[in-house]
Amino acid sequence: MSPLETAQTFFAHWSANRIDEAVAMLSDDVLYDNVPLPDIVGRENVRKFQADFGIGTVFKVDWQVTEIAVSGNVVLNERIDVFTHESGGHITLPVMGTLTVEDGKITVWRDYFDLTSFERQLAAIKR
Amino acid sequence: MSPLETAQTFFAHWSANRIDEAVAMLSDDVLYDNVPLPDIVGRENVRKFQADFGIGTVFKVDWQVTEIAVSGNVVLNERIDVFTHESGGHITLPVMGTLTVEDGKITVWRDYFDLTSFERQLAAIKR
Repeated sequence: MSPLETAQTFFAHWSANRIDEAVAMLSDDVLYDNVPLPDIVGRENVRKFQADFGIGTVFKVDWQVTEIAVSGNVVLNERIDVFTHESGGHITLPVMGTLTVEDGKITVWRDYFDLTSFERQLAAIKR
Repeated sequence: MSPLETAQTFFAHWSANRIDEAVAMLSDDVLYDNVPLPDIVGRENVRKFQADFGIGTVFKVDWQVTEIAVSGNVVLNERIDVFTHESGGHITLPVMGTLTVEDGKITVWRDYFDLTSFERQLAAIKR
């Protein structure tokens, strides 16, 4: 798969709730940089972070890619990430990010977003 | 100029403190969407927003493009935006954005970043 196809497959796995398949596309030592939050290093730590938040269980996600373009092995993407809570509540988050692909694995997953916008919507769901 | 060249010239103007030349590249009715902040519509309103903040006067900017890629007439870009205050203080902000180019003018300027990260650094300068 090309870097573009790798990125498209990765987002498709998340949005179809195929969490194991998505996480399997990360390199062992992936850097997951959620820019406003501390870096997470390593595939199993990413799996734990997503599981702890309830992705795939309490939350289903639909990460809608609105623009995508490639520079070498880096895939720049613009998205609307929709998180649907089991209660029916939603978080709708505008995101841009990059995925770096090496030897068919994602070695850097970086996302830019406004943390307060996410937290405000999360608090509204949990009330 | 291609959309890519337009984007590169636009960022170069800002970083060289050629504010008038940068603003002149926007369409009359440009949409300036600083994602965590309210939309600004119109070239003259963008000029006023930047001037009110002191860009080009109190602050000089250096917007360092780290990745850039094109999808049709949309230029996706990843940057480190450095704002240097006249006092010597800095704001260093990781940003991703898109520029939409139509008929040689920028019609949409959209930037994604963490507003709290910006505000925290701004407050540290103003103290």
